[in-house]
Amino acid sequence: MQIDRHDGAYKMNINYRLKLLRNEMCRHNIEAYIVPTCDFHGSEYIGEYFKTREYISGFTGSAGTAIVTMEEAVLWTDGRYFLQAASQLEDSEFILMKSGEPDVPTMKEYISQKMRYGSVIGFDGRMMPASLAEDISGIEGICADGNMDLIGEIWKERPEISCKPVWRLPEKYTGMTYVCKIAEVRKEIKDAGADILVITSLDEIAWLLNLRGNDVECTPVFMAFMIVTEKESILFIQQKALDSKIKELLEKDGVIIKNYYDVYGYLEKISHKRLWIDKETANYNIIKSVHNTNNIINRFTPVLTLKAVKNPIEAKNMRQAHLLDGVAMTKFIFWLKKNVGKICMSEISLGEKLEEFRKRAESYIEPSFKPIVAYNEHGAVVHYSATEETCYEIKPEGIILIDSGGQYLEGTTDITRTISLGNVSDKMKEMYTAVLRGNLNLAAAVFKEGCTGVSLDYLARKPLWDKGMDYNHGTGHGVGYLLNVHESPNAFRYRIMENPQMNSVLKPGMITSDEPGVYLENEFGIRIENLLLCVEKEKNQYGRFLGFETLTFVPFDRELINVDEMTAEEQKLLKQYNEKVYREISPYLTEEEKRWLRENQ
Amino acid sequence: MQIDRHDGAYKMNINYRLKLLRNEMCRHNIEAYIVPTCDFHGSEYIGEYFKTREYISGFTGSAGTAIVTMEEAVLWTDGRYFLQAASQLEDSEFILMKSGEPDVPTMKEYISQKMRYGSVIGFDGRMMPASLAEDISGIEGICADGNMDLIGEIWKERPEISCKPVWRLPEKYTGMTYVCKIAEVRKEIKDAGADILVITSLDEIAWLLNLRGNDVECTPVFMAFMIVTEKESILFIQQKALDSKIKELLEKDGVIIKNYYDVYGYLEKISHKRLWIDKETANYNIIKSVHNTNNIINRFTPVLTLKAVKNPIEAKNMRQAHLLDGVAMTKFIFWLKKNVGKICMSEISLGEKLEEFRKRAESYIEPSFKPIVAYNEHGAVVHYSATEETCYEIKPEGIILIDSGGQYLEGTTDITRTISLGNVSDKMKEMYTAVLRGNLNLAAAVFKEGCTGVSLDYLARKPLWDKGMDYNHGTGHGVGYLLNVHESPNAFRYRIMENPQMNSVLKPGMITSDEPGVYLENEFGIRIENLLLCVEKEKNQYGRFLGFETLTFVPFDRELINVDEMTAEEQKLLKQYNEKVYREISPYLTEEEKRWLRENQ
Repeated sequence: MQIDRHDGAYKMNINYRLKLLRNEMCRHNIEAYIVPTCDFHGSEYIGEYFKTREYISGFTGSAGTAIVTMEEAVLWTDGRYFLQAASQLEDSEFILMKSGEPDVPTMKEYISQKMRYGSVIGFDGRMMPASLAEDISGIEGICADGNMDLIGEIWKERPEISCKPVWRLPEKYTGMTYVCKIAEVRKEIKDAGADILVITSLDEIAWLLNLRGNDVECTPVFMAFMIVTEKESILFIQQKALDSKIKELLEKDGVIIKNYYDVYGYLEKISHKRLWIDKETANYNIIKSVHNTNNIINRFTPVLTLKAVKNPIEAKNMRQAHLLDGVAMTKFIFWLKKNVGKICMSEISLGEKLEEFRKRAESYIEPSFKPIVAYNEHGAVVHYSATEETCYEIKPEGIILIDSGGQYLEGTTDITRTISLGNVSDKMKEMYTAVLRGNLNLAAAVFKEGCTGVSLDYLARKPLWDKGMDYNHGTGHGVGYLLNVHESPNAFRYRIMENPQMNSVLKPGMITSDEPGVYLENEFGIRIENLLLCVEKEKNQYGRFLGFETLTFVPFDRELINVDEMTAEEQKLLKQYNEKVYREISPYLTEEEKRWLRENQ
Repeated sequence: MQIDRHDGAYKMNINYRLKLLRNEMCRHNIEAYIVPTCDFHGSEYIGEYFKTREYISGFTGSAGTAIVTMEEAVLWTDGRYFLQAASQLEDSEFILMKSGEPDVPTMKEYISQKMRYGSVIGFDGRMMPASLAEDISGIEGICADGNMDLIGEIWKERPEISCKPVWRLPEKYTGMTYVCKIAEVRKEIKDAGADILVITSLDEIAWLLNLRGNDVECTPVFMAFMIVTEKESILFIQQKALDSKIKELLEKDGVIIKNYYDVYGYLEKISHKRLWIDKETANYNIIKSVHNTNNIINRFTPVLTLKAVKNPIEAKNMRQAHLLDGVAMTKFIFWLKKNVGKICMSEISLGEKLEEFRKRAESYIEPSFKPIVAYNEHGAVVHYSATEETCYEIKPEGIILIDSGGQYLEGTTDITRTISLGNVSDKMKEMYTAVLRGNLNLAAAVFKEGCTGVSLDYLARKPLWDKGMDYNHGTGHGVGYLLNVHESPNAFRYRIMENPQMNSVLKPGMITSDEPGVYLENEFGIRIENLLLCVEKEKNQYGRFLGFETLTFVPFDRELINVDEMTAEEQKLLKQYNEKVYREISPYLTEEEKRWLRENQ
């Protein structure tokens, strides 16, 4: 989607757009304008309408913030995107700020340094996370004004906000009616001493109402806000997204339907109440609409925490989704190994081929994120995204890293395999084996209730840490059910977060990815990812012991494993996994695929 | 020390004391009086003067809080002391509240339920941690009054507050002058934006001034408060504890000396400042003395965090202290194994015998805590303390758990060994081996900077968790330098603490105990404890890797190890440890001891 825009003409446009923006800034009498990457709901992936930062800067990465003053235009992004941003900002006036690098100012520092005392910084408060906006408002001597959408003023061909039809996810998939879910949420609201819950996250609303949509690529959600009180549930939604059947059903069950944009006015009328709002995802205008006779309880909503624990029906469906996905991936790997060097293939074409295999499942909807297909040294770029310009042709040698996932009616998948295409080096084997050992050891952990992912992250990293090596990303993230592929609050990481609600204990029913890796710049990258369902193992006088059930069944690559570097226990775990893959997947394979699977595990 | 008081006459006294206390309560017009276990400084171990809770209740354990109303007398203590408290409260009016057990009210709940709206609860605010006092003051409809010492009114034979001579710890032990330490602290004060640091912890003042005392058993500290500002250092101290030489020296270096009790009045005169005070250890009257034109920064003081990281000289000395201690322990174990069954010995006499061995070192001062000597099923009581009544005679069979430590000029030790006396069961061996594996694996960890003890705790527990077993205590605590044997902020535990400063990252120079265990009620208990010094292992493009240097050198018990249950890696770690013990300790052993050590590892 990004490729066609990334040409010279586009780059030249940027300075012209900056000129138009500065005209608007003059008209509004502001000294700086800030453009983050955000929709009205704090989503990770955003719809086309919201790509204002991409429009003004030309940088297409998924994370970054632009600040434009009358003199300068600067863009912050993180390590994943330094190379891409440098290339895309080239020829434009934009200066790249490499977040976290020494001597690079933070946004707050930049604003303090560059702006005159008493001057105004403008932004669109609906597209700004409340926490970030409050940070900026807090800078001494700077006035923040969130009541303008200046990119909207200059972006003539801006797409409409998406408004695709909303559809019902039947109870055989959700395991629970939305009436029951709302009742559970009301209990939590009461226990927290709150009067009103304001839900601003799209996946939380979709989960709560057992509805899905198609307004954001890779995530079947729809544009909406929701308010739940002891007596009322109000859905703020683009009304033409709702067909009459769903509308009637919701209204029959007491859900009041209002227009999407009426949420701000509705909030303004509330006084002397305790409102529960998660400022991590709520936008600034939502918070500003709550006037100060009210109290805000700022923490994860009960929807987020209930949603993270999959119910038994969801867990059963997730197993089925992973079976479908495992069959597609296994067939794809067989096809790749058989055809590499014989037919022409590239990183981009392989992503499309894999999609073909997934599409064979009836319940498949779409990818759960844009797949990463990274050959040899591209594998060392953690969030590599192939473009026509960078795309490698695939040869029958070296290794390829493929990180992809699907949205099925039965749930969301996310899997990474690193695959040998022939002639792999000893170093590749050594690294693959270390990563595999970490993956297997984490999946086999037995632990006391009360542990967080911080207690277990060491297991995935130990084989690398013992070698003085590491990977610069978390070991795992929560995964939604036919929702966001990245979901809070469960995770595997070794650092304790300052925000205590991010340090969530692991609970049976939570699904977390297990994805250690290793990245050798200009050489190759390896990552192995399975999803783990947290389950109860035993309950006795010592307490409750938990563990994991691996959901992902796709073979590891025997050509890359150095069994001698594995302990006896690790070899046993590998054997068990291989047997389970064969047992689960082989019934859906051709005789040829089956033979290959048996002989190559 | 506790034994002679624990007789019938003492028990009978309690009700009479309660009568006297209630007379005082009437006179002061209060409905309830609360007596925690605390000195003026939030110390873990307290001097005789401060044992008011013991005086009023007869319960001698190290933790507990009494509340006396006109109708009832109740005492809360935790699981370590349920048996002891039940026995010591028997025959008195006191009711035991088992903290944390189901249906047992918390103190706050009890106060809310039992006290009339608008009535007053009294206590001595100097002997009450500010955080607890603020909790009680916050109970609706209850008025808290901390301006009385009613136990002081009735306790006729109360000992004086200890005032032993203060002595200097030379720089060859501290590794740093106190002038330099104060300069570092001032830098931290400035960085935190504070004006005034109020230090209330006895070990922090002793560390900062390179002084030691003898006012608290097992901890060489002295009664004092201290205030540090950009320009001034003020020591509030019982002046007769200071000899003229130390006084002159301090004054020469600009330390102002004031009377111990003048700290409250001094604080009352401060206005419009930012005061840094740690409310976890500051007493209630300290906080009350700060009037509200000031701001309080409530967090660990910079002294606590600087003190936790031992400097290279302290680390070197700590190695020497552990060598002296290791020689004493090894000789003691040899003596025990040789003489058990031949000469008469008991849990109490063994504690005294071990002290004899430690005393042979010239630089030995005193035990770092009251030793735990627990034979067979007594070992299952985690904080067992032998009394004349419970004390077992030791026979040449079963196992004995000995947890002890010493204060040396070269530092503080803390070591646990579980020792076979003959005829040990397979179950004992299985359990010992599991605990040993956990101890060895934790000590061998290599980890990225940024990890806390939470990341590593799993290593110590894994062998037990894999069996569905656990121990109900942390895996390790920080250890001071010739100061408190339990020191914050470093620790090994699996739960993340709500208070973020308790989740301290591990830093090179920190010393933490590694003491997994297992406790089978009415059967036996096993614990193995070494101290670990955090050290840098490697620094490269992946970051900084840390690990541990084991400080403790005392043999494990070969008779209790089932090598077949250990992985190849664990066997290697055991062999390395054994070799190091022999290399370090054998030069100080007799030929007979040496032979035994060589043959029994």
